[in-house]
Parts: sequence; structure tokens; C-alpha cells
Amino acid sequence: MRYLEADQQGVVFNMWYLGYFDEAMTLFLEQGGLPYNRMLEAGFDVHLVHSEIDWKAPLRFPEEFGVEVGVDGVDGVGRSSFALRFVVRGPAGEVAVGRTVYVVVATDGSGKRPIPALLASALGDPPG
Amino acid sequence: MRYLEADQQGVVFNMWYLGYFDEAMTLFLEQGGLPYNRMLEAGFDVHLVHSEIDWKAPLRFPEEFGVEVGVDGVDGVGRSSFALRFVVRGPAGEVAVGRTVYVVVATDGSGKRPIPALLASALGDPPG
Amino acid sequence: MRYLEADQQGVVFNMWYLGYFDEAMTLFLEQGGLPYNRMLEAGFDVHLVHSEIDWKAPLRFPEEFGVEVGVDGVDGVGRSSFALRFVVRGPAGEVAVGRTVYVVVATDGSGKRPIPALLASALGDPPG
Amino acid sequence: MRYLEADQQGVVFNMWYLGYFDEAMTLFLEQGGLPYNRMLEAGFDVHLVHSEIDWKAPLRFPEEFGVEVGVDGVDGVGRSSFALRFVVRGPAGEVAVGRTVYVVVATDGSGKRPIPALLASALGDPPG
Repeated sequence: MRYLEADQQGVVFNMWYLGYFDEAMTLFLEQGGLPYNRMLEAGFDVHLVHSEIDWKAPLRFPEEFGVEVGVDGVDGVGRSSFALRFVVRGPAGEVAVGRTVYVVVATDGSGKRPIPALLASALGDPPG
Repeated sequence: MRYLEADQQGVVFNMWYLGYFDEAMTLFLEQGGLPYNRMLEAGFDVHLVHSEIDWKAPLRFPEEFGVEVGVDGVDGVGRSSFALRFVVRGPAGEVAVGRTVYVVVATDGSGKRPIPALLASALGDPPG
Repeated sequence: MRYLEADQQGVVFNMWYLGYFDEAMTLFLEQGGLPYNRMLEAGFDVHLVHSEIDWKAPLRFPEEFGVEVGVDGVDGVGRSSFALRFVVRGPAGEVAVGRTVYVVVATDGSGKRPIPALLASALGDPPG
Repeated sequence: MRYLEADQQGVVFNMWYLGYFDEAMTLFLEQGGLPYNRMLEAGFDVHLVHSEIDWKAPLRFPEEFGVEVGVDGVDGVGRSSFALRFVVRGPAGEVAVGRTVYVVVATDGSGKRPIPALLASALGDPPG
């Protein structure tokens, strides 16, 4: 974390967790073989349409933490949307659990698109 | 909104909504007669333990928007926690709906506290 | 200011001042008759190439503050760049003084452009 | 960099560089043997009193970059203040050069303090 993310309570201000999730999502897709810019070049992008976070404990500067990310076990991968699940762990255990839902859109502004094969593959969801 | 809050998609990046909600919460309590610093001086503070947001549409720079905030109709005010509900409206209508849950804690680090009368009153929940 | 901008020292973290300056710059041009989006539509944009800030005192949440902005008396308006000067004042007086220099670029990626009449006029610099 | 730091121009918004510098400063002191929290425990802290940045080129998401940091060759380490110099390098070369000046203060609110031996040592400035 960065010093600037801890507020005057001495703990990471809540909004930064959505920044952490975004970064984790990008890395997750990249590790699945789909760097963000390749997705854009392929003509599609993702928009966040839902987020939820439950905090169990705070993070204090300069504690190190990790973010586990994976496809959400319940909602998973739909026709034009997908859900990810995040667990943030600090030195003393679980800090927060989050869930986000993204829709796939065309970069030309024409709206929603079905999840392309490249993205489905990056999400570990082989075309059936 | 600020220019810096719009990302390269040209829309406000998701995490800033949690910043908007925090600001709206502070103003809501203040309008209820409880400025944030008076709450601290009285020995208690609030910690966010849950947030959820549903986005309907994006906000683009420099669109103006408003945030409606009120006690959540379902969860409302509990013994040591309370829930707020937020609606973000832009020039073209509803942009996002959010819900947050806070717990009340002592500023001396001793943990959760029942909602004090001052806060209950600011939330429009007269002591019964 | 926003609560999230105060760090664990209890004062506004330094980077947010550049956000305040950016907002003040946008409002300054707007009050001079040039809303940011009209500048983009006219085919040009501004890039920050230099900033400097001197802090005299901190801002603490939830102190109110104002930002004075004007064309810098020394560097002023050049051929393809202009300099602004900022003074941030809080409840106890001067908090910070800043200076920024912007270059004008074409939005088509073709690089620097001379300051257009529309912008010169917004900066209060009548074409000579 | 993080996706959220790139604005609608597609480049890292200027204020984040001050965040990068702060992070580099913390790491620099840590590598010099003074973790930030040990400095606080020793009863002193640092306040930024001056910053300046010159940008040569933009950073685009998701370009990787590095920040070189060292004691400023000109102003260096004074009685109660010290100056650092930063160079930000991206994939295509130098992106920005910065300079910051910090004063040392007591954490008990009693104001400026001479640079303590622990900090002088971390800055590579052996007590003479």
C-alpha cells in the first residue's frame, strides 16, 4: 500500500480497495493470457456494473497485503458479464472480501457484447 | 467531479464513488446536527464494514451530479451499526445506487460501541 | 477537501494540491469563457510540463479553503505555453503557493501548437 | 502504475507523481536503514515543504517505470531540512525529474527539529 492511502484513522481508506481489485483483475486476465491492451485492440472493454466489499479488519501503513482473485463461484461467467471474487489478506489474516461484476462492451460505443473467446479463455472458461 | 477522476475510458473510475459516498455521509450527519469532528470529540468514530454499488450509467467529465443519501430503508439503524443508501444522479438520470454499513467504535481503541444518542439523533432515529 | 485526502498525519497529503490546481485551472479558463470541452472540440488540449509548490502550513480535515488562480506575473503567456500561479488559503491564512506551466498541444497527436486566440482570450491576453 | 492513474488523455495524471515520489522517499530511507515507522517511534516525522516537477514525456497505461531517488546534489542535507531528487524513467527514457524538500518535525507537535543522527545516516550523511 502507499502512505497516501491511509487516512487519519491510520487505516487504508475504503475506496482504495476498489483500486486494488481493479489492479488484481487486470493481472488476473494478463496471467490468463489476455493483457488489457490486447483486449482493447481486439475491440472490447469491460465496465464495472456491481461491486461489494465486506471488511473484517483494517490495513495499517506499511503493512503488506495480498489480493487473491478468481472467478466467482456462484455467478461466474455469463453471456456478456462475469463476476470475480477477491480476498485481501494482511499480516494478521483476512482483511476484506469483495465481489465485482463486469459487462463486456464494444470499444466502438455500440454497447454490450457477448464474452469473446479470448476473454472466456483468460477467465478459465473454455468455450463449450 | 474532478478531471482526474475520469479514466482513459472517459468515465469516472469506480473507486471515486466510495469517496463521494463518504463525503455524502459526512454531510448527512452534519445536516443532522453532528459534524464529524464533534463525533470524534465525543469519543467515537465510524468504520465502514460493508459497501455495495450498482452502476446504471457512467459519469463523464465535466458532468455535474448529485448524491442523495439517507438511512437505508431495510437495515436502517441497529444497536452498534447503521446502513445508508445513496443514489447518484447525473444529467441523464440515475447513475449508481449504493449502500454502506458502518459500525460505531470508540476512539480509544476499545472496539465497538452502541450507537450514541447524538448519532442516533443525527440519523433521524429518536431514542425510543 | 475530502476526508480521504487527509493522511495519517491528519493533514491533506501533498499530491491532492495538484488536483486542486487542476480544478482551479479548469474553472479559471471556464470563467474566461473557455470550458475545457470547448477547447478539446476546437482541437487542442493542454499538458502540464512543470509544477512547483511551496507549503507554509497544513490543511486539516474538515477545514475549508480557497484557491486563487491567475496568470503568473513573471512567465505569463508565451507562444505555445502559459504559466499560472496559485495561492491556497485556509482558515488561518496562506497554506501553499504554486506555479504550473502548460504547453498547448493538438488533440490529433501532432504535437505543440501556438496558443490559440480562444485560449489567449480566456487567459486575459488579448491578441496583440 | 495503476489503470486508475491514467486520465482521459490516456496518460498518468500529474498528481500521482507526488505519490510516486513519496513512495520512493519512504523506500530510500528504508534502504538507508530507517523504516518510516521507526522514525515515528523515535519521535520525529517529515513534512514536505517544497516540490517541483518537470515533465519530459507522458507515461501511458500499462507502461512500466522506475523512480531513481537520491539526496539532491545542490541542496542536500541541511540543519533541519533535506532535499531529494527524483528521476522517473519509462520504457522510452526519461519521463520526469523532480525535487522535494522536507523539514523534520517532532511528532509531539513541538515543531521543527534538527535532523537526527538516525535520519542523517539513512540519507548517507555521516555526522561530521
